[in-house]
Amino acid sequence: MSLVKLIEEEDASPEVKAVYDDIKASRNVDWINNFWKVLANDPKNLRRTWESIKEVMAPGALDPLTKELIYLAVSISNSCDYCIVSHTASAKKAGMTEAMRHELLAVIGMASETNRMVTGLRVAPDEKLLIAATAT
Amino acid sequence: MSLVKLIEEEDASPEVKAVYDDIKASRNVDWINNFWKVLANDPKNLRRTWESIKEVMAPGALDPLTKELIYLAVSISNSCDYCIVSHTASAKKAGMTEAMRHELLAVIGMASETNRMVTGLRVAPDEKLLIAATAT
Amino acid sequence: MSLVKLIEEEDASPEVKAVYDDIKASRNVDWINNFWKVLANDPKNLRRTWESIKEVMAPGALDPLTKELIYLAVSISNSCDYCIVSHTASAKKAGMTEAMRHELLAVIGMASETNRMVTGLRVAPDEKLLIAATAT
Amino acid sequence: MSLVKLIEEEDASPEVKAVYDDIKASRNVDWINNFWKVLANDPKNLRRTWESIKEVMAPGALDPLTKELIYLAVSISNSCDYCIVSHTASAKKAGMTEAMRHELLAVIGMASETNRMVTGLRVAPDEKLLIAATAT
Amino acid sequence: MSLVKLIEEEDASPEVKAVYDDIKASRNVDWINNFWKVLANDPKNLRRTWESIKEVMAPGALDPLTKELIYLAVSISNSCDYCIVSHTASAKKAGMTEAMRHELLAVIGMASETNRMVTGLRVAPDEKLLIAATAT
Amino acid sequence: MSLVKLIEEEDASPEVKAVYDDIKASRNVDWINNFWKVLANDPKNLRRTWESIKEVMAPGALDPLTKELIYLAVSISNSCDYCIVSHTASAKKAGMTEAMRHELLAVIGMASETNRMVTGLRVAPDEKLLIAATAT
Repeated sequence: MSLVKLIEEEDASPEVKAVYDDIKASRNVDWINNFWKVLANDPKNLRRTWESIKEVMAPGALDPLTKELIYLAVSISNSCDYCIVSHTASAKKAGMTEAMRHELLAVIGMASETNRMVTGLRVAPDEKLLIAATAT
Repeated sequence: MSLVKLIEEEDASPEVKAVYDDIKASRNVDWINNFWKVLANDPKNLRRTWESIKEVMAPGALDPLTKELIYLAVSISNSCDYCIVSHTASAKKAGMTEAMRHELLAVIGMASETNRMVTGLRVAPDEKLLIAATAT
Repeated sequence: MSLVKLIEEEDASPEVKAVYDDIKASRNVDWINNFWKVLANDPKNLRRTWESIKEVMAPGALDPLTKELIYLAVSISNSCDYCIVSHTASAKKAGMTEAMRHELLAVIGMASETNRMVTGLRVAPDEKLLIAATAT
Repeated sequence: MSLVKLIEEEDASPEVKAVYDDIKASRNVDWINNFWKVLANDPKNLRRTWESIKEVMAPGALDPLTKELIYLAVSISNSCDYCIVSHTASAKKAGMTEAMRHELLAVIGMASETNRMVTGLRVAPDEKLLIAATAT
Repeated sequence: MSLVKLIEEEDASPEVKAVYDDIKASRNVDWINNFWKVLANDPKNLRRTWESIKEVMAPGALDPLTKELIYLAVSISNSCDYCIVSHTASAKKAGMTEAMRHELLAVIGMASETNRMVTGLRVAPDEKLLIAATAT
Repeated sequence: MSLVKLIEEEDASPEVKAVYDDIKASRNVDWINNFWKVLANDPKNLRRTWESIKEVMAPGALDPLTKELIYLAVSISNSCDYCIVSHTASAKKAGMTEAMRHELLAVIGMASETNRMVTGLRVAPDEKLLIAATAT
């Protein structure tokens, strides 16, 4: 149970309702999930967060599926259970197959494993890699 | 400076040399980066880690660029500086443009932001999202 | 369900009972919450933890509400669910309003977002900021 | 060294320059720190991030010093070195004394300690605390 | 509830069954826990993960109990609830007493506390400690 | 460079000097490392932290080497660079061999890998494991 109440559509102020309507239209869905209903207790934060997400998650140099996979990888790294559920659902809607899900988890696991080995041994960056990683 | 010495190719035992050769052949590179040179102090761990990475990062349901972007997202979430440098280099080699790099960072940032809001308010998963996230 | 049993007040040894009594007197409450009942399985750890918390959370240069907000921000960053519940309760008791709660979450979210962007791009500290951050 | 170049004021496009000018005016400073110069490689992300920070960090139910202390606590929890330097500087500018800095660190440390004990023992939330933590 | 189905022994493919049999034989148990049943949805990942764990957790320079305590300490630091339960069980099977459990938690807590203080104050490594920490 | 000055022994107040002397006597060393010199800017926090560490790290149900390995595993999980250096030095002093160091890193890596897979798939604890993990 959330620590604040869920603001249902029928109880939403005009300001909140406008955000809910934009979420539904932009995502082509007919309902609002709990994340937004909880944020709606602070309408300014709801609006700011929605506008940021809409801008960041729009197709661009990266396609929507890739963005959802990244979002999910971060949510798993941060142990955010709700986010894992909601962004697994989004990733599947954007085309993630079961084979992709399992490969995603294998990559996340492998990165987490080597991240810690590297940190524990204080590996110094190779000059060649630093150059290759830097924008010219 | 690393906490253990770098095992250079010319000083490598046959067991380590075999792994180095496979890394160079598999990745089509002519040098070994510090991560492997450090792991080579424990040849069994070197071999196991390399075999796992080779299997996990091979093209499959996800293409190599997508895998590198996910690896980088996790490395940033875990604050692994060496890994950020090396996997930014790998991602660029696999095709990451500057526009993609900035979108990747925007998605990582946005996920990190909403992850914490959700955790702090204890948002409960929506039944519909749980169903959509579950493999059938 | 906790992995160790809850030591209820009526079952507490004199050593544990003395800590419980000090908690109740210091906080002006008439009951003991689960955190302490669980720690009481190791009376030495219970005493040490309570004495540290009592010292650290006492009013000083920072007032009790500010300390609770910081405690809550850290607990959210560490994904500690029990701690989020208990320190939200403490913060509200110390004066946190609903408006403050939502601003706290917005600041935590924003910090988490920019932390990752900075880490991913390896931003180097400005000399001026280093000087300004250092005690003279 | 950052992985992307610093966009200096004299090289900024009009879009970037407008954000830089707003940062300087809003914060009453006469220079731009590296975080913004790095983000400026992606002007849209620069603008979005600045507008969010300006809105979130404005005085509201929480005063600017409290917000900076929370920002710093999160940055320490996320091991973001640049952010620790820059937000220590901001916190000092907003009034953080050395005594406050040390109390802040003590609270962060104590929270991190108890967060892990609680997680490791799977302490279940007390019904009374859940009720106290929930908005009515 | 897991996001993918549990592959029970009676429904396992020969490839999965072979791994299950090796787990049961190697650990001298007569049942398979959920972690493996979930991984079995991706038989290649199941096999790779099991072979890695079998190699890493085998007695070596560190005894099995010490390895389980370290595994548990990491799982607590990463807030992985299932892992805390399963590796507490493994640690107890390997000889962890209740007194050891409480000391483990006290050490984890103390490390987490000082880690954050050190990070927040940017303590620079002592030359003497760097030398002492480096393999010769 | 630390954000606060190092309090050298010759400049220490009697209160700080007393703690320094106890550190040197308890650890049988003839110098003070930077962690304590930095904490000494807040003598009360110095004393409290030292007393807690002395109590927690004393031999008990777990021997000093095991405690140092756990401390190091947590410091690596939290990406605390100074702590990794100082507790690698302590672990080596307490008897950690190079073989043990590499096994420690392999266990930390493996735990980090499986932690994330489990979290991403929301694996539910087995009833049998819950019972086995719970103190009776």
